[in-house]
Amino acid sequence: MPTPADPVAIARDLIRCPSVTPAEAGALSYLEHLLAPAGFSVDRPVFSEPGTPDVENLFAGIGSGARHLCFAGHTDVVPPGDTAAWRHDPFAGDIAEGRLYGRGAVDMKGGIAAFAAAALDFVAARGPDFGGRISFLVTGDEEGPSVNGTVKLLAWAAARGERLSAAIVGEPTNPAALGDMIKVGRRGSLSGTLTIRGRQGHVAYPHLADNPVRALPAFLAALLHPPLDAGTDRFQPSNLEVTSVETDTKVVNVIPARIEARFNVRFNDRWTPETLKAEIAARVERARAETPLRRGELPPVEAELAFLPVVSDVFLTHAPDLVETLAAAVEAETGRRPALSTSGGTSDARFIKDYCPVVEFGLVGDTMHMVDERVPVADLVTLAAIYRRFLDAYFA
Amino acid sequence: MPTPADPVAIARDLIRCPSVTPAEAGALSYLEHLLAPAGFSVDRPVFSEPGTPDVENLFAGIGSGARHLCFAGHTDVVPPGDTAAWRHDPFAGDIAEGRLYGRGAVDMKGGIAAFAAAALDFVAARGPDFGGRISFLVTGDEEGPSVNGTVKLLAWAAARGERLSAAIVGEPTNPAALGDMIKVGRRGSLSGTLTIRGRQGHVAYPHLADNPVRALPAFLAALLHPPLDAGTDRFQPSNLEVTSVETDTKVVNVIPARIEARFNVRFNDRWTPETLKAEIAARVERARAETPLRRGELPPVEAELAFLPVVSDVFLTHAPDLVETLAAAVEAETGRRPALSTSGGTSDARFIKDYCPVVEFGLVGDTMHMVDERVPVADLVTLAAIYRRFLDAYFA
Repeated sequence: MPTPADPVAIARDLIRCPSVTPAEAGALSYLEHLLAPAGFSVDRPVFSEPGTPDVENLFAGIGSGARHLCFAGHTDVVPPGDTAAWRHDPFAGDIAEGRLYGRGAVDMKGGIAAFAAAALDFVAARGPDFGGRISFLVTGDEEGPSVNGTVKLLAWAAARGERLSAAIVGEPTNPAALGDMIKVGRRGSLSGTLTIRGRQGHVAYPHLADNPVRALPAFLAALLHPPLDAGTDRFQPSNLEVTSVETDTKVVNVIPARIEARFNVRFNDRWTPETLKAEIAARVERARAETPLRRGELPPVEAELAFLPVVSDVFLTHAPDLVETLAAAVEAETGRRPALSTSGGTSDARFIKDYCPVVEFGLVGDTMHMVDERVPVADLVTLAAIYRRFLDAYFA
Repeated sequence: MPTPADPVAIARDLIRCPSVTPAEAGALSYLEHLLAPAGFSVDRPVFSEPGTPDVENLFAGIGSGARHLCFAGHTDVVPPGDTAAWRHDPFAGDIAEGRLYGRGAVDMKGGIAAFAAAALDFVAARGPDFGGRISFLVTGDEEGPSVNGTVKLLAWAAARGERLSAAIVGEPTNPAALGDMIKVGRRGSLSGTLTIRGRQGHVAYPHLADNPVRALPAFLAALLHPPLDAGTDRFQPSNLEVTSVETDTKVVNVIPARIEARFNVRFNDRWTPETLKAEIAARVERARAETPLRRGELPPVEAELAFLPVVSDVFLTHAPDLVETLAAAVEAETGRRPALSTSGGTSDARFIKDYCPVVEFGLVGDTMHMVDERVPVADLVTLAAIYRRFLDAYFA
């Protein structure tokens, strides 16, 4: 019987590759040399697009059969920032007081290490002909433009005949403790710009100008109130945030001609992008019709609404067996019944959902993107055990 | 009897000096060579200050006696912009269809020319010992930083024993026709910044952040409503304009930490800078106390109010004889009874008022700072006649 794979050692080795997006920095090569000897076929497609850096990716697969489980993740990491602020070198992989330190420890080299260990042990126990297929879909472009990564790798794999039955994304999904939360969908994201136009002029002659800032409160109120919805069965309330406001001029003796408010909506399954755009447009139109720039003296405000292309639509995973198999594995190893959530931001699951049902479960995210990102060694071991238990059940 | 001085020729010669701030470009030398032969003593002090360009100025005086009338103006002009957009070269001094074209035609080389012609004729008629004193206080820094100009020239003259009895500023004061308006004071100007602080965060996790934009409408409403006052006997209403709004971040996935609104108030004699600051602070404090960033869940908004140094206090000229003498001269030459106004922006009168009573009367301002700035030749002649009639009456 072979020695069990060590998720802590794998995570440490991955952390030692300084793979800040878009640098590969040895991380994918390390995975290749870990998986190939165990029988995985490994491909390393590089994708390009004008205006973005070339990105290396990895697809590795083993076994065949109708059930094909894909583990999706990324080896790229966000920059460490000021390394002097770190207690431990962000690329040293130090272990101290039971914690493995380093950029990517939880987001998401630790998740990859846990799944790799689980898959290696599973294949070692069951052999390559276990009656199904396991694949790794790993990109180096999740924290970057996300152009030469998961989207293209999914299409590349499909073109080579890979048919995924289910996918698990190993992003950190737990808010506080391992076992807290499985993600079974995500809200969508829609961004836009509201432009209010007035007439520029000298502050000493306001009657010769129209200050668009005077109309802003009414438009902001219309965007923000009432709330878009109160949430649905499986989703948090949709929420609009105004992320920036800016006048075209910035000197104290000039009345500006234009003010722009940019906003982002995280929306749930109460909406489609189309119905949401229509709702926002109706609110803007109402504010426009009711708000003259100056009281009654002038035509109503010129207001323009523009939306950015929709980068992520709302989705909910309809695969009760898959979700329950994962939840049961989590509960067995942690004693916690994970919440099935659709909260938080977007992830590459938004792309994978177009190919197969997708769930997300990984480490605890509380230190992700922060100085001293770290993971309890015990969590890495437990997460590997969860993934292994899940593989056993999924391919039972 | 000498030939009468020609205000049109003087204005044309001044326009031909391309004296865009801070360039002297021959304009002050031209005045020196015009006034010195008539008996004026002429000084050309240059003032400096770190961070600003050196500026040439001119002080010319003739006569002695208790009554000292000072004519104040500037030979510098704003840039012409795209000269190709002008029907006539902005520095050619072309005359077409009864109009003299050029940058500075009304603001305010035309005013200087009219007063110079009037003063030369007056001195030629009465001799240098006419029983009083006439001076020119002319700067090259009115359209620029206004640091090395009128402020320092007034102090320089006072230090040399010049005691002004009254001053007339030759800026364009008439909205539509020569004779419309004498300015007998100006509103003050106060600028400030309101900063609302929240907590930065990711748009997908609004419960972990506080978006300061949510509080903005309440603060804007408090600044803008109700109006500061309805005007006073001699002044337009005080008016606050928000001149810029800007968030500290400008990307669609980040909730900003801070938003700044800058504003300017033009205020009348209902206020002092101190009472006005107190009123604005009270409005901000009221909005702050009533506006939690999120409904009831958090402490009230952090809002900070900061004022820029007061650059111009409100003033009203209390010199009925001076005003009436000028108004009578205007009426005699134009047939129009000029309105006594305090409307519009600031001028160098805000500095002169600390030395003597000051009134302002000049050309029609409708083309100032515009492409094809121009003045009817007839207006130059009439304005010179008004000034001459005023000098005769003032020194009667």
